[in-house]
Amino acid sequence: MADKKFVEAITSMDVDFAQWYTDVVKKAELIDYTSVKGCMVYKPAGYAIWELIQKQLDERFKETGVENVYLPMFIPESLLQKEKDHVEGFAPEVAWVTHGGLNPLQERMCVRPTSETLFCDFYKNEIQSYRDLPKVYNQWCSVVRWEKETRPFLRSREFLWQEGHTAHATAEEAEERTIQMLNVYADFCEECLAIPVIKGRKTDKEKFAGAQATYTIEALMHDGKALQSGTSHNFGDGFAKAFGIQYTDKENKLQYVHQTSWGMTTRLIGAVIMVHGDDSGLVLPPAIAPTQVMIVPVMQRKEGVLEKALELKEKLLGTKENFRGSSFRVKVDDSDKSPGWKFSECEMRGIPIRIEIGPKDIEANRCVIVRRDTREKLEVSLDELEAKVAEILEKIQTEMLERARAHRDLHTYTATTYEEFERTINEKPGFVKAMWCGEQACEDIIKEKTTATSRCMPWEQEKLADTCVCCGKPATKMVYWGKAY
Amino acid sequence: MADKKFVEAITSMDVDFAQWYTDVVKKAELIDYTSVKGCMVYKPAGYAIWELIQKQLDERFKETGVENVYLPMFIPESLLQKEKDHVEGFAPEVAWVTHGGLNPLQERMCVRPTSETLFCDFYKNEIQSYRDLPKVYNQWCSVVRWEKETRPFLRSREFLWQEGHTAHATAEEAEERTIQMLNVYADFCEECLAIPVIKGRKTDKEKFAGAQATYTIEALMHDGKALQSGTSHNFGDGFAKAFGIQYTDKENKLQYVHQTSWGMTTRLIGAVIMVHGDDSGLVLPPAIAPTQVMIVPVMQRKEGVLEKALELKEKLLGTKENFRGSSFRVKVDDSDKSPGWKFSECEMRGIPIRIEIGPKDIEANRCVIVRRDTREKLEVSLDELEAKVAEILEKIQTEMLERARAHRDLHTYTATTYEEFERTINEKPGFVKAMWCGEQACEDIIKEKTTATSRCMPWEQEKLADTCVCCGKPATKMVYWGKAY
Repeated sequence: MADKKFVEAITSMDVDFAQWYTDVVKKAELIDYTSVKGCMVYKPAGYAIWELIQKQLDERFKETGVENVYLPMFIPESLLQKEKDHVEGFAPEVAWVTHGGLNPLQERMCVRPTSETLFCDFYKNEIQSYRDLPKVYNQWCSVVRWEKETRPFLRSREFLWQEGHTAHATAEEAEERTIQMLNVYADFCEECLAIPVIKGRKTDKEKFAGAQATYTIEALMHDGKALQSGTSHNFGDGFAKAFGIQYTDKENKLQYVHQTSWGMTTRLIGAVIMVHGDDSGLVLPPAIAPTQVMIVPVMQRKEGVLEKALELKEKLLGTKENFRGSSFRVKVDDSDKSPGWKFSECEMRGIPIRIEIGPKDIEANRCVIVRRDTREKLEVSLDELEAKVAEILEKIQTEMLERARAHRDLHTYTATTYEEFERTINEKPGFVKAMWCGEQACEDIIKEKTTATSRCMPWEQEKLADTCVCCGKPATKMVYWGKAY
Repeated sequence: MADKKFVEAITSMDVDFAQWYTDVVKKAELIDYTSVKGCMVYKPAGYAIWELIQKQLDERFKETGVENVYLPMFIPESLLQKEKDHVEGFAPEVAWVTHGGLNPLQERMCVRPTSETLFCDFYKNEIQSYRDLPKVYNQWCSVVRWEKETRPFLRSREFLWQEGHTAHATAEEAEERTIQMLNVYADFCEECLAIPVIKGRKTDKEKFAGAQATYTIEALMHDGKALQSGTSHNFGDGFAKAFGIQYTDKENKLQYVHQTSWGMTTRLIGAVIMVHGDDSGLVLPPAIAPTQVMIVPVMQRKEGVLEKALELKEKLLGTKENFRGSSFRVKVDDSDKSPGWKFSECEMRGIPIRIEIGPKDIEANRCVIVRRDTREKLEVSLDELEAKVAEILEKIQTEMLERARAHRDLHTYTATTYEEFERTINEKPGFVKAMWCGEQACEDIIKEKTTATSRCMPWEQEKLADTCVCCGKPATKMVYWGKAY
């Protein structure tokens, strides 16, 4: 009955995927709307996922030599305008501060939509000589983009992210860092979020405002839509020339620096929901699950049951067994709700492992472990509990990635004629691989006719045909196309 | 010579303490000014200190049941105005956003100067029943206050902080949480920052806009000025009434919640500089030192020297010895600067331990350990290096607190007559303890005549006299007075 009530509370994903998503976000208590239109509250369950993402991503950054900094949230209008393409891309969607206290400002400032211009202004003073290079800085912060349509995690007027901004002596070094960070992102998505991604380069039409090249990782959601999950940009010396960032090289000659930037956002949480979730709610990979194991006492008023549940918790917290070097994150649900209700809540919140323990289990020195991802039930002797939990968490993490990859591959199609392309993209949600001539005109036509966009030119190129799927002229690249969030 | 150059670069603290402070902040590369007036860049060395503060404070919060969340950075004007005292306190110093993208907003919004109003708006929907209480939420974020005069870390238009906001069923529980968090702050300051603090209550004149009671921790800087280092506020049900935050109690009756808030900021870094620093630069307590040990090879071009330095680093990173449960944070300075220059840099940056290792040391299987705080030099056998480093770091941490406490006590005076009070506060930089009648008029007179303010009514009260040091009427409280940052 509790089960039924919970399930009724969320729309089935096959009936209305968008509504299912909103229901899960709300029912799993990840996020809530506020009086501030288009801005969200990250509630404890949602923010704790972000903290785990931050921690693990930040560790990977620091291993590659990244240092964290914090720059102001305001950008004076004159600074935003220094790089032509960049200002055109962002000016229409920024929030403007015009008054400080009771007085109008001499120059209005926007709240950062991204911080390239601030980093350039900073680097201009910081960098004098080749000895000052490279600069490999990152900041964790919130940014504001005045979007018209908003959706929890995927698109909101304020969102949380990290933005890395680097400066290098040579073009080669900048390109190397751009690629290196895209690889960090891709590995993180696969290893921590259990989301497989396609790595590739954006076409000129889709690249970042002011970038020479934008690289991207693209993931496929359960409904077959694509989600851009992280980007890494090589700016060449474009910003350096606009801002005058020069250094003296070893031969005492003035040179412009070469720059990159790269970012991932809270949108990743949206990706986790849409890749792994099901009709009972969230399914979290253990690596980013704030609670990995929930112990639910059954008939908890019977003598010894709650005590045993708490004892198991201590046992799991105290063991040397672990998940990827970190102690297990374990809780006991000792509230006065019914076990059935608690089970459904564990499912809604996506907790990877539920342990059920009642009087009969205690008598038999065992418990029942239930996997959230497969709902598989296992009877486990209490003597081997810690080892089993470690083993099952690892298994869940691995198999979630495998299933997501299988789903992605199953929903990746190829098309060699335009007719086939249009039919596939409209009838079969997923990626469509097809050849492209390199002209933006063809991207425009495809977008107009099908709403699909070029997601990326993947690093792993295949030759599916000789000609562009749209215009029939000689093809230069294979492109992943998709309808995107 | 390198030493001399470095020392010349910073003003002596006895000559001009304010200039010494600015020089250290700049030379230790903690922070820099930007094109955005009154806003700072936190550079890697400064931000890394903040990260260590965050980590250790956040752990202490979570041990008391705090959960992290994130609320929007914007407050609609109508929301800010809901609590009368609060809006009067903050409206004159906020930054106003009036345009989103190309369009004027229907209602202007300020960038949060603090988030009481947003949390109230959130709690109004979140809290229905006694089962929903308590709420013990915190957020790490940046806030904006349009200050006219700014100083690095101490006062800037944007600063980083944490703000806890809680809601409770009863007045007692709210008061308990207010006190609990002040104690968490005080312990953190003493145990991690090595800064002793006075715990007490603010007078009505000095309390937070909208609070029923404000508790504070007050620290004494090296120059004898006071610094408010953290505050914890009990709001009673004032905000709850203004925002209509009610819950149904166990008897099914509607009740208002009781709320608290508490915050600490990047100003703590300013306190660390001003309590522990000296004429050679920063002195960091090991608990918040991004680098705890710097290994400096002497004659590093000689065969085997750099290798040995790197070997010692690995040895220190790989050992089970530790500082308070965390591995040592160790670096080798293998740059091509001279050893003298490197020594001075270590001092400027406040690195607790410097290890010098040269050919003769290697031959004798020893190294030289130099403490930053006392400059004491010790010859240490390489066989006992790890244990010695652990021991010395602990000793530095403990002794820094002891010295700061001795300095504070030495500069804490008492006054029982107004004449004595004025002479002491003007001639002897430090705290002055004196009796007070409880009337704001006396605070106003003292501030006007001496610029000193009441810092707090300490929890540990003493009876120094029967009458108020200012007006001679019967005294009700002993107060710490001081000139403050």
